[in-house]
Amino acid sequence: MTHDAKRLGEFELIAKYFAPLAGKEAGAFGLKDDAAYLRPTAGKDLVLTTDAIVAGVHFLPGDPANEIAQKALRVNISDLAAKGATPRVYLLTLALPPAIDEPWLKSFAAGLKRDQAHFGVTLVGGDTVATPGPLTISVTAIGEVPQGHMLTRAGAQLEDDIWVSGTIGDAALGLRVGQGELVDFDDKHRATVLARYRVPEPRLKFGMLLHGIAHACLDVSDGLIADLGHMSEQSGLGVIVEAGAVPLSAAARAATAAKRMSLSELLTGGDDYELVVAAPVSRRKRIMALAERTKTKLSRIGRTTKGREVLVMGAGGERLNFERRGFTHF
Amino acid sequence: MTHDAKRLGEFELIAKYFAPLAGKEAGAFGLKDDAAYLRPTAGKDLVLTTDAIVAGVHFLPGDPANEIAQKALRVNISDLAAKGATPRVYLLTLALPPAIDEPWLKSFAAGLKRDQAHFGVTLVGGDTVATPGPLTISVTAIGEVPQGHMLTRAGAQLEDDIWVSGTIGDAALGLRVGQGELVDFDDKHRATVLARYRVPEPRLKFGMLLHGIAHACLDVSDGLIADLGHMSEQSGLGVIVEAGAVPLSAAARAATAAKRMSLSELLTGGDDYELVVAAPVSRRKRIMALAERTKTKLSRIGRTTKGREVLVMGAGGERLNFERRGFTHF
Repeated sequence: MTHDAKRLGEFELIAKYFAPLAGKEAGAFGLKDDAAYLRPTAGKDLVLTTDAIVAGVHFLPGDPANEIAQKALRVNISDLAAKGATPRVYLLTLALPPAIDEPWLKSFAAGLKRDQAHFGVTLVGGDTVATPGPLTISVTAIGEVPQGHMLTRAGAQLEDDIWVSGTIGDAALGLRVGQGELVDFDDKHRATVLARYRVPEPRLKFGMLLHGIAHACLDVSDGLIADLGHMSEQSGLGVIVEAGAVPLSAAARAATAAKRMSLSELLTGGDDYELVVAAPVSRRKRIMALAERTKTKLSRIGRTTKGREVLVMGAGGERLNFERRGFTHF
Repeated sequence: MTHDAKRLGEFELIAKYFAPLAGKEAGAFGLKDDAAYLRPTAGKDLVLTTDAIVAGVHFLPGDPANEIAQKALRVNISDLAAKGATPRVYLLTLALPPAIDEPWLKSFAAGLKRDQAHFGVTLVGGDTVATPGPLTISVTAIGEVPQGHMLTRAGAQLEDDIWVSGTIGDAALGLRVGQGELVDFDDKHRATVLARYRVPEPRLKFGMLLHGIAHACLDVSDGLIADLGHMSEQSGLGVIVEAGAVPLSAAARAATAAKRMSLSELLTGGDDYELVVAAPVSRRKRIMALAERTKTKLSRIGRTTKGREVLVMGAGGERLNFERRGFTHF
């Protein structure tokens, strides 16, 4: 781990807050070297992913430090889950503005510690730099899959089922709550969706067992419709989604009923970190059994078709035309 | 590769400028997935390192984009060299301020392309995010070493020789030139040291063959004296350096002769990205032969001792006492 935010007593901070996160991982050298080593497991491919989050862009500057840490790690764990990978280690780069103090870092490290245990992943290196700009956190996460079995966006086949985990649109609602909107919305709903925005729940237990079942998988970060578009494009197929089959939480249903948020905003809002899975019809029982075994809510929302479009169908079989964030009946 | 700097036409930019850098690397999927895979070589450990650079902190905002790209990659390649590792792949996270335009990105990608060929490394993934702050570039580089043979800072043994590659202090001088100082200094020297600051030269060919010869190695980023301190601390030994044996370029010698920069500023300035190597006396011939074979300038500047201090000795055998950026006779 290197470091140059010298005004913060960087060596001491790494030793105090981050070195304990490396624990007994031999390759991490207690974060005292410039690099770490990782001994690969025989017969496995390594899966590499990196995602950064920026204050004011991907999280709100006032969000609790421990939850910012969890979000930074979880958006990467979610990518590993979508690839069918089992997490092993991660590296962490922090660009710290002057306002970051020791209590903040203590809370941040506590958030990482909690999630390391939860997801079975260990910090093995990183970099800490000073920035005159906003707090920026970049994580590179490394996992493993059996050789040749990494799930991609590109593997969907014709007439596959399209499944989605959890519920869609809560993070988009949560962002609004975090921004001070929806103040008169039900308190319990507000708390639920704010938590969904701040600390997404990667579907790791489910995702890491999907290889051999799914043809393709990705996690919803840009928004359900946009991410289905990625799968469609990469797989060279169309997708038909039944809008009524897309799983919504009680909070999201209440928000749409009260016209506080439209269905299109929920389906295009992003930051859900749910898994979208394409799997053959013949494996319905297997995938449902896997969802049950891993206590993962799973909904079948559509299927792949010929063509290259993502079509969203309304309750009466009419096509809903999503354009940017709004939609019109076609 | 994910992306959210939408105003820049992100998908198109990745396809146009970054996907070509992934080339034919199977695991990169043309940067069209959320993650990449890497198939490890049997019998090797992976070496993981990450370093970020921030505009105004690690490079000057007006530096040429292709050279900023090279610096971002090279500071990481230098870490791999110091670990005795052969580079394989890297991931790139860009936090882009609004002022970044397409010509800048084109030049940036050209710098990466050139260095990929030079160092034998391939882009396999990354993330592009928008930031209201300064341009921030984070690279995670992954290399390989024979299992159990990663060089560390901690392996130096008593009475080892201390060697250093290249010359020390040029980047510190180059930073001053870049900041508009030393305007009356020799033009050729100005160009030389500015290039050393902007585009360091990782000693990769030399470093990746050091395992089996060196006991310990690190690259000079914080400054020669500070980094010798890291080796001393991690190895539990003292280090004696002969100041007169520290290799200086013609530019640095001219600068000290003209009292434009002190020896202590050169030896503590940092950003050199030269390798410091601890190796047994019995391997002097081998290490010198390796340096010659890889066309690497190599100087023996001292040795390890009992104790925990880094002592710098002057020409008359007197101890020079470095304190922060100045030094006094002791």
